Amino acid sequence: MNAPLVSTTSAWQSLKALGARAPSLRSLFHDDAERFTRFSCEAAGVLLDYSKQRIDTATRDALLALARQQQVEARRDALLRGEPVNLTEGRAVLHTALRLPAGSHLMVGTQDAAADAAAVRARVAAFAESVRTGHWRGHRGRTMRHVINLGIGGSDLGPQMVQLALTPFAQSDLAFHFVSNVDGRHLADVLARIAAADEADRTLVIVASKTFTTLETMMNAHSARNWLLASGCPIDALEQHVVAVSTNVSAARAFGVAEQNVFPFWDWVGGRYSVWSAIGLAVVLAIGAPAFEAFLAGAHAMDQHFAQAPLERNLPVLLALIGIWNANFLGHGALSIAPYHQRLARLPAYLQQLEMESTGKRVTVDGQPVDYATCPVLFGEPGTNGQHAYFQLLHQGTQPVPVDFIAVVDDDCGLPGHNDALLANCFAQSQALAFGKTLDEVRAEGAPAAAWLAPHRTFPGDRPSNTLLLEALTPGTLGALLALYEHKVFVQATVWGINAFDQWGVELGKVLTKDVLGALHGDLGPALDGSTAGLIARVRERRGLGK
Amino acid sequence: MNAPLVSTTSAWQSLKALGARAPSLRSLFHDDAERFTRFSCEAAGVLLDYSKQRIDTATRDALLALARQQQVEARRDALLRGEPVNLTEGRAVLHTALRLPAGSHLMVGTQDAAADAAAVRARVAAFAESVRTGHWRGHRGRTMRHVINLGIGGSDLGPQMVQLALTPFAQSDLAFHFVSNVDGRHLADVLARIAAADEADRTLVIVASKTFTTLETMMNAHSARNWLLASGCPIDALEQHVVAVSTNVSAARAFGVAEQNVFPFWDWVGGRYSVWSAIGLAVVLAIGAPAFEAFLAGAHAMDQHFAQAPLERNLPVLLALIGIWNANFLGHGALSIAPYHQRLARLPAYLQQLEMESTGKRVTVDGQPVDYATCPVLFGEPGTNGQHAYFQLLHQGTQPVPVDFIAVVDDDCGLPGHNDALLANCFAQSQALAFGKTLDEVRAEGAPAAAWLAPHRTFPGDRPSNTLLLEALTPGTLGALLALYEHKVFVQATVWGINAFDQWGVELGKVLTKDVLGALHGDLGPALDGSTAGLIARVRERRGLGK
Repeated sequence: MNAPLVSTTSAWQSLKALGARAPSLRSLFHDDAERFTRFSCEAAGVLLDYSKQRIDTATRDALLALARQQQVEARRDALLRGEPVNLTEGRAVLHTALRLPAGSHLMVGTQDAAADAAAVRARVAAFAESVRTGHWRGHRGRTMRHVINLGIGGSDLGPQMVQLALTPFAQSDLAFHFVSNVDGRHLADVLARIAAADEADRTLVIVASKTFTTLETMMNAHSARNWLLASGCPIDALEQHVVAVSTNVSAARAFGVAEQNVFPFWDWVGGRYSVWSAIGLAVVLAIGAPAFEAFLAGAHAMDQHFAQAPLERNLPVLLALIGIWNANFLGHGALSIAPYHQRLARLPAYLQQLEMESTGKRVTVDGQPVDYATCPVLFGEPGTNGQHAYFQLLHQGTQPVPVDFIAVVDDDCGLPGHNDALLANCFAQSQALAFGKTLDEVRAEGAPAAAWLAPHRTFPGDRPSNTLLLEALTPGTLGALLALYEHKVFVQATVWGINAFDQWGVELGKVLTKDVLGALHGDLGPALDGSTAGLIARVRERRGLGK
Repeated sequence: MNAPLVSTTSAWQSLKALGARAPSLRSLFHDDAERFTRFSCEAAGVLLDYSKQRIDTATRDALLALARQQQVEARRDALLRGEPVNLTEGRAVLHTALRLPAGSHLMVGTQDAAADAAAVRARVAAFAESVRTGHWRGHRGRTMRHVINLGIGGSDLGPQMVQLALTPFAQSDLAFHFVSNVDGRHLADVLARIAAADEADRTLVIVASKTFTTLETMMNAHSARNWLLASGCPIDALEQHVVAVSTNVSAARAFGVAEQNVFPFWDWVGGRYSVWSAIGLAVVLAIGAPAFEAFLAGAHAMDQHFAQAPLERNLPVLLALIGIWNANFLGHGALSIAPYHQRLARLPAYLQQLEMESTGKRVTVDGQPVDYATCPVLFGEPGTNGQHAYFQLLHQGTQPVPVDFIAVVDDDCGLPGHNDALLANCFAQSQALAFGKTLDEVRAEGAPAAAWLAPHRTFPGDRPSNTLLLEALTPGTLGALLALYEHKVFVQATVWGINAFDQWGVELGKVLTKDVLGALHGDLGPALDGSTAGLIARVRERRGLGK
């Protein structure tokens, strides 16, 4: 089973040599007037300009050779066919089946994944329609006004990000509240606002937990349930206020959800890939089923591009290889996601989970430790906000940080001047990062009063970025953008030889939490390290309990 | 002027040697039962447990020697006395003067900074009181209901973060909206919500811009002003709806703000250090002047600790040296801020600006390029949310990422069980990161079905973290926490020999934006690089304009 690490292969070694003498962006642009045309690519409404990466034709060829060597095409086909590519958990990975066109079929064992997904989607659509049209009523006969989505990780970040991004497509005046944290303040602050408006009886709670056992979500679900009951909801009317997205129908039933209001998904849908499933219920409530179908269709268009386009014009493949070039051959340990679009404010957090949970791994599928970097740290804030915060470090810090700029051409807010200023800022930032400003250029502008001041005004340049340009932010282009990053992650995992679809790294903390919780309550379990014991003693002391 | 780089000094070289043989956390805890006591420290309501850093007594001594060598004490005293420590801009840096007790005096040249700050504070308090009590009325005679804070960077992140953090201390039912982005969608979405509630006449706009020329803020200010007028506000009643925080009184007057409603601050207050000034107006509106005074008093308590405590028990100094150890001697390029408190959701973004804009620099004060790392990448989401997103990489990624865990003992939401679960998760995460799980330990639990699966369940451990424990989140402890990080940044900058108080890195983008904007409008200015020209052509094409 033990395949050699990719770092031992000749394709990798060639790239090492290229990385050691990577050309500067100034020279790359100087040498090639057609660079933008040669190093940009478009699909499904997304233009990727990667000309501001330190990549020339030879490097691109070497990266594509690496991808071919790692059998990216065969692995992609296996993924899309529904083979059990999540080997450590023995599962297929078929978020792509969730967005196949109506009438499609895709068998996973004896299950038709595409048909089952379509059937649930129809149920979600009918339910959402009844809420949005006011047919659905609360226990006092009033229509719904608030939706509280209780979920964490993929059951939170996806619907939250998409609902905000697609604000202009809203088809109702429902207010959405996404509560994820086990910190009770998260839920309590939302409930207090609803109670202040006397709208508890106009509140719909979605409990989104695949197993119906996630600690945070179930604790919040029980507290929300208690609040509904305390607000006057009769226990047998709970099912007018609580629905579930879960595979565990019996647990949801026991909790008080009517069977027809439990919307399932399947073990071939990972949490961070689940916004396309019934986990997207909040999105359907917000924008309606037709717009949600357009969101799926946009993702499907990117799936088809990924499946069919030659590697050298395949957006997910290119985006993945650029990331590998920066991480493994130029040594960059971070990636900033900078959406120049305020409604994409939660996209960095969404992609942070998608990438860091998928490829933040250190052993290959067959269990060997890697000797190369995998996922970088992803972070970001919307532009132009970031420019007034962390961009100082991007321009003049000691650590070059590649950036993915995401920009949208069309204006849809009607305030004159703003959109042009936004786009100009976005393009100017990538320009400043790429080309910098030399000491000679600073001096040519007129020397500052003291010679020691000039270096403060220089910019090293050669800081790479992608620009992803959408003509408009619609359900379709957003779907395509997210699918692009999903497949980027898969390609990177394939090259690195790791499994993008498990998350063993979250297990240890769950186990340890139980012992710590016991110790907080005074139960002496296994001996604790001095730090944990010391912190627990401080908590118990503050509470007036024994040490 | 050219001092030798710190990296050439013997103190630095000693640390290099120590870094190369840094002990593991398992061995450090094994060898010292008193480690928690020896490696924790407390001041102003903040406990810092740094026992889970890979630091022993010898390393701590060497770090303290480095601090002394770099004259941290003398530079600190110069800072606090009001000397022009911002050398590249020739300014004093006196955010600490903003939080001196009533009756204090601190002369900067001919100005009494402390007295001037107190005088503005009194004006801010009186204004906020008139709004909060309903004395202040809009043009239709109704009380205020919405506050829109227009500002960006430090004029946004500080008041936004603090207002959210101190939600339980709110003294009014004002709704706060923080609009920063030049993206018009940011403002438009807020205005649409207010208009839908027919409350334009109950809206107070704060224009927060030191110079009253910040592109984003002024564009938003003009659009907000147009909206107020379009909503029926007579032009001579604008001053009932718009106030300013600015040093440029005449520009604010011309914009339509009454002179008595322009609240100034001074050039010795940097943007990212300005929440203590009139920039905190939104906070005063939210929690009232007495609670804001408590916030300042908490920061002042930390200032006094910083000024007086010996370096080995000085929280900001220790926090700074830990960061230097991790960045420069263990090679860690990132720092995750993980507040286990939902209302601190914006603290990571606030600290991201504070640190990355202050120490994301690559030349020393006297203009020499450094040959060592300065500020790492800061990022984070509230716990427990982060555990279900990026923590996979923290536990099992190839790049160790130090973490600052921030936890609060007291519960203040009244939902049973949540707070204990929150604290237990927080402590368990740092435990898992520190000690990991070996292959032998995995096997001892019972081997997985296939041998190749076991490595997926191992955790390398030795991933360092701080835990900052507050007994409660109050205005006072929050003030102390923020001042702690401010001084941490100053100490790091002092050791690295850089200026924490300028931000030349934001200048180039501003200049380039003008040319790009011109090109978007078809004005051919200086020749553009192929990428920028290509992107602009795509925008103009989409708009049906010539290329």
